[in-house]
Amino acid sequence: MKKIMNKAENFVDEMLEGILAAHPKELKITNDDLRCIVSANKTDKKVGIATGGGSGHLPLFLGYVGDGMLDGCSVGGVFQSPSADQMLEVTKAIDSGAGVLYIYGNYGGDILNFDMATEMAEMEDIKVVSVVAGEDVASAPKGEEGKRRGVAGIFYAFKIAGAKADELASLEEVQRVAQKAADNVRTMGVALTPCIVPEVGKPSFTLDETEMEIGMGIHGEPGIRRGALQSADDIVDEMLFPILEDLPYVEGDEVSVLINGLGATPKEEMYIMYRRINQVLNERGITVFKVYIGEFATSMEMAGASISILKLDDELKTLLAKPAHTPFFEQKQL
Amino acid sequence: MKKIMNKAENFVDEMLEGILAAHPKELKITNDDLRCIVSANKTDKKVGIATGGGSGHLPLFLGYVGDGMLDGCSVGGVFQSPSADQMLEVTKAIDSGAGVLYIYGNYGGDILNFDMATEMAEMEDIKVVSVVAGEDVASAPKGEEGKRRGVAGIFYAFKIAGAKADELASLEEVQRVAQKAADNVRTMGVALTPCIVPEVGKPSFTLDETEMEIGMGIHGEPGIRRGALQSADDIVDEMLFPILEDLPYVEGDEVSVLINGLGATPKEEMYIMYRRINQVLNERGITVFKVYIGEFATSMEMAGASISILKLDDELKTLLAKPAHTPFFEQKQL
Repeated sequence: MKKIMNKAENFVDEMLEGILAAHPKELKITNDDLRCIVSANKTDKKVGIATGGGSGHLPLFLGYVGDGMLDGCSVGGVFQSPSADQMLEVTKAIDSGAGVLYIYGNYGGDILNFDMATEMAEMEDIKVVSVVAGEDVASAPKGEEGKRRGVAGIFYAFKIAGAKADELASLEEVQRVAQKAADNVRTMGVALTPCIVPEVGKPSFTLDETEMEIGMGIHGEPGIRRGALQSADDIVDEMLFPILEDLPYVEGDEVSVLINGLGATPKEEMYIMYRRINQVLNERGITVFKVYIGEFATSMEMAGASISILKLDDELKTLLAKPAHTPFFEQKQL
Repeated sequence: MKKIMNKAENFVDEMLEGILAAHPKELKITNDDLRCIVSANKTDKKVGIATGGGSGHLPLFLGYVGDGMLDGCSVGGVFQSPSADQMLEVTKAIDSGAGVLYIYGNYGGDILNFDMATEMAEMEDIKVVSVVAGEDVASAPKGEEGKRRGVAGIFYAFKIAGAKADELASLEEVQRVAQKAADNVRTMGVALTPCIVPEVGKPSFTLDETEMEIGMGIHGEPGIRRGALQSADDIVDEMLFPILEDLPYVEGDEVSVLINGLGATPKEEMYIMYRRINQVLNERGITVFKVYIGEFATSMEMAGASISILKLDDELKTLLAKPAHTPFFEQKQL
């Protein structure tokens, strides 16, 4: 287990101490709980936007708390949901009377706890609505979209919702655009190596030195095909074609493309992937408005990458183009 | 060799095609040579700033071409210097009569070729000056600073020089502040795993499953100690203490800290490192103005990280705080 860490049981809290020490102007804790983190600069009157989820996915989830994106995040153990109490703490801290939107990934533990937090918040007269992101086309077939796992595409829901909330839009309007972003994004990933949960100390699955798994989730959930490592172009095609056919994305569409490194994959390889994505989209008459390439939703030291495509309309494009500033994500007006 | 790529011999050019396709508003090639890349938005009259070096280090070197940083970059093969002809092409493309500053790392091949390009540029009546960055304290002892390798700290020279050039300062002034940044930064790194040059197909060195190497360079150059993997705090101390003693950095100093992931190291681990760095700097009465944590100078899929510290004065602080926008680095005014 080759990790730069101290005791495994302190992995998450020491990470959080480091994040808070590095970004004191941007982030703070709500009370004495390191796991309840909010923006140090939330605008008053604005709808609050909260997320939460397991650790081990930086920049997800905490990394998107900041100007133009999220207002707070409850932080779980590695690959574990935070508690409903922690979600409630964050909710109370970021509500200014305009209500709170939860945006989180489609995982059982998170759904259970966010539902409970919603009920608890209502008892404190805070109005809460939710958008559950699930866009991994490898995790359930078309027609069963509600069963799909949420992965890197949730970035788009955060970005779009944050930009709308900054306009002092109503809770319903912020929810509407976040849902629209979530509905118009599709993702598929490929894993080349596993990762190790610090307190477990060994990989949750193995892949041979010449193998890859197409469609694997960011916690190592099974994909749709395991086989010999293919060329970059073939890997891209095997992920991109099902994505494009699913929504579908067709000639004349304008999109944003996100290539997400899972942790150990160099940017060089992601750009080789983008070269092929660009070829395919050009061939199909699909225009690219904005490309994001980097790490957006990782699985610690897992090697591999995912491709997400967001179909844009004028509203989504305008909101995507707005500036944002968080400790992990910076964008000037496009 | 688990890489997402097509043919190894096309690794660099396909990566460049991907970068140009992803960032057409920001980057362009000077002629038909993919390896000669310049900003699409260079301000006229400004001093031109160029860098160059081997591939395999993204965002270094190419990724810092853009607003507020560099104007052009010549791109070599993986871990290979670009040619003097390519450097000259970039130089000619970015000179607007105000002269050109080269900022590059202290490696034999790069020095040879940049020196040759300087002579060739002078024959074309372009004034060229250079700053050679070398700040890895593990690579040569104090007193022999001129022998030190340039690693992630070169980011600061790029950032400072770019901000000064944007003020339409003279070539001598831009060179002066770049040199000042280079003189005031120190770095040390640790490697946990090797990386593989695509056309070689096997690691250039090996590290056991429980080993690390302190002080290793970004091309796998030998470090100062190989041994059992230590705790994060011990690793940080072994790198940070020699850095602090070298310049030295003392009570009352104000600094910027850069933790650079070498490619496969998760941000979680880098923040655990920062937690300890922050403790040590606090204990020593050293104030942190700005923290950068992420990938700045990688070695493809190598696991490990480096720590760089820049000592600031009012001038460096003002220049560091200026905004920048490149395809790989974005900063709003601090």
